[in-house]
Amino acid sequence: MIELDDTHDPARTSWVEAANDPASDFPIQNLPFGVFSAAGHDARCGVAIGDQILDIRACADLGFFEGEAAKAAEATKASNLNGLMALDLRFAGALRRVVADLLDAKAGHAAHDHRDSILYPMRDCTLHLPTAIGDYTDFYAGIYHAIAAGALMLPDNPLPVNYKWVPIAYHGRASSVQVSGAPVRRPLGQFMRAKEEMPHFGPSERLDIELEMGFFIGKGNKLGEPVRIENAAEHIFGFCLLNDWSARDIQRWEMFPLGPFLGKNFGTTVSPWVVTAHALAPFRVPAMKRPSEDPKPLPYLSSATDQQAGGLNVDLEVRLSTAQMRQAGEQSQTVITSSSRYLYWTPAQMVAHHASGGCNLVSGDLIGTGTISGPDQAQLSSLLELTSGSKPFAIGEGEQRIFLEDGDQVTFRGRCRREGFRELGFGVCTGEIIPAHHGE
Amino acid sequence: MIELDDTHDPARTSWVEAANDPASDFPIQNLPFGVFSAAGHDARCGVAIGDQILDIRACADLGFFEGEAAKAAEATKASNLNGLMALDLRFAGALRRVVADLLDAKAGHAAHDHRDSILYPMRDCTLHLPTAIGDYTDFYAGIYHAIAAGALMLPDNPLPVNYKWVPIAYHGRASSVQVSGAPVRRPLGQFMRAKEEMPHFGPSERLDIELEMGFFIGKGNKLGEPVRIENAAEHIFGFCLLNDWSARDIQRWEMFPLGPFLGKNFGTTVSPWVVTAHALAPFRVPAMKRPSEDPKPLPYLSSATDQQAGGLNVDLEVRLSTAQMRQAGEQSQTVITSSSRYLYWTPAQMVAHHASGGCNLVSGDLIGTGTISGPDQAQLSSLLELTSGSKPFAIGEGEQRIFLEDGDQVTFRGRCRREGFRELGFGVCTGEIIPAHHGE
Repeated sequence: MIELDDTHDPARTSWVEAANDPASDFPIQNLPFGVFSAAGHDARCGVAIGDQILDIRACADLGFFEGEAAKAAEATKASNLNGLMALDLRFAGALRRVVADLLDAKAGHAAHDHRDSILYPMRDCTLHLPTAIGDYTDFYAGIYHAIAAGALMLPDNPLPVNYKWVPIAYHGRASSVQVSGAPVRRPLGQFMRAKEEMPHFGPSERLDIELEMGFFIGKGNKLGEPVRIENAAEHIFGFCLLNDWSARDIQRWEMFPLGPFLGKNFGTTVSPWVVTAHALAPFRVPAMKRPSEDPKPLPYLSSATDQQAGGLNVDLEVRLSTAQMRQAGEQSQTVITSSSRYLYWTPAQMVAHHASGGCNLVSGDLIGTGTISGPDQAQLSSLLELTSGSKPFAIGEGEQRIFLEDGDQVTFRGRCRREGFRELGFGVCTGEIIPAHHGE
Repeated sequence: MIELDDTHDPARTSWVEAANDPASDFPIQNLPFGVFSAAGHDARCGVAIGDQILDIRACADLGFFEGEAAKAAEATKASNLNGLMALDLRFAGALRRVVADLLDAKAGHAAHDHRDSILYPMRDCTLHLPTAIGDYTDFYAGIYHAIAAGALMLPDNPLPVNYKWVPIAYHGRASSVQVSGAPVRRPLGQFMRAKEEMPHFGPSERLDIELEMGFFIGKGNKLGEPVRIENAAEHIFGFCLLNDWSARDIQRWEMFPLGPFLGKNFGTTVSPWVVTAHALAPFRVPAMKRPSEDPKPLPYLSSATDQQAGGLNVDLEVRLSTAQMRQAGEQSQTVITSSSRYLYWTPAQMVAHHASGGCNLVSGDLIGTGTISGPDQAQLSSLLELTSGSKPFAIGEGEQRIFLEDGDQVTFRGRCRREGFRELGFGVCTGEIIPAHHGE
């Protein structure tokens, strides 16, 4: 596990003023990595600080890095973070420590003197996917989601018999992962409508969200060589928010027996900033407590360290804004709140399981946790669960929703809170539903 | 559909003598593309001819190409075929026509004069994956496989209710796709043994093959923009053989409700040569005839041209060689024969379905057809089906198999035969099972 150090000191402030606003997701204690382009520049790697982006390459050109930090900066020369992720975690840790010093209100004079050539206002930049995603895997580790979703199919026995033994997952579609802000086109597809005798093809009528966290693989493993649970955390570079948009009607009709396909692969949205394992060190918590009647994880998924500190404490929120609300000048409304604490399997268990048969994980790969519902009604983290697919909830002035309508904007936020530490966040993971493609 | 032209003329021969052997998979009428490296060279794109590989770059450097063929050759400059596949099919068609002329026994004097600088003996080369595979999707289009596999679960109602409406598929693992010849490590995994009460973790005890064909996406489509069935064939660059190695015990325990994951992602093997849509033009056949009681495909999957000529006629064969057989100097034995005619859905229907919801297919993506079993016992194209998971078959001198043992080598071959045309083939798709990783 990553040790706390002075990068986690809540007393530190930055000469980038906006980073010191308690509401900012990107204080000097965070420093997430991302990929951005400013006007006239190719995409390059940067670090979020308050409302600004620090250009790593520009800092390297000024000679601000040496040793491990310099090697880390060198690895960000491409237009994605795959190279940095491929290094041992300590390299990104070293880079983050130096960046903290550069941006420090007290220590960062040298960088401050060059602020015009190393900082870009975030609002003037385009943000890109953090990595070239080789493979994207989606787990099903939110047990309250599995219970709530399962209950809609099998009310008496909602949880699959393998659930408490196997960190269930499926392969998702890498090509259609998009960065926050990209519109999401309502998919056409084939599905069975209630009481009809043959399937219908047309725009999905049950378009949904799934509130998840994502994480990026750091070091990979060779094909045929499992990752031991004790070492799994070293393969996790950092985290983001992830919306696993889902067309429930398409998914339901297609998914037996081989799982979800077109019901999911029309688009997945991730937040642009990768909050590092280093920044999250203060917010590690014990794995979700298993009821005593639950089986113990098998040895290949079992590590005392992981059980003690392999969980993650991120408060999650989903806000919805409809086209009508925006026209009326209304703010978006919170429709779901949840927490990453409700994951039955830890990220390290997901990695160890994923690689247990020898599957090679590759630096920059994206892993989704699965929908993170909590035990309460307001914590049900998809509309399918919230509405049971039939009971509408009220939104805005006189509107209601069971599933998403065109023009709906869905925004996820995540925030880490712990007494004695500076709060930090993930930025937004947002997308707007645009109408289905016309015709077939 | 691609028109027949003089590249399909069975009377043509090559100055590469081995290509004229009737048993060769790579006569001048085939000319599949692949990626190879010869001693001292980086990986580069080539064309198989008899027992040789033609170096496309070397031919380009000699000025052998112009116009569309030159543009196609230019697109092969990288160490994979993705660039060539991204072009309209006619560019690869033009390149193939010029290559046929270069290698022609009568017309190919210019190339023959340079044979030492443009040809490499295949046995001296390392073959690589043809493309950088962004995403790998596996369909389930072999209806006799779906029936036989389904019958092991639900004897009275083996075929899923959606089967005749939906070309069922799932996302596979791209990172663990390997080229023919790479060893396949027996996966460790979690599974329920018969009559045990909790799952076991260890080497798979039910390791299997699946006989499939694969195809590579040529031109891609933009996210959110479906591909019409009428245009789908233009997105298919060419075909290969594909072994979807499967650990039945792991798969069975993990796959409810989200489909196969670790039961498949420890490795998938493809043959190295991409037999182009152009070379296969004479071997197109009508789509599999649907019994009159079956539903008609929905309009987005329905095209008269595709029904008339969207099928593919490739004879398929699986050979098995055990370590004991090789020690005794025995030849491998044929254990399965089948045909790509037994696909309920055509490749074009797979493409149109895959993109129907807007999922973006990318040049170089790999699509598997699903296991292609036929109606007869000897055509059951996985060991699970052949043995029902319990009835051994005899192999070699006194050996028997239900599933694969360490040291077993499995080799797929595919061959196109039609009266009045030169036979052509796919080369081999082979892999040997090596023992599981020790420990956990």
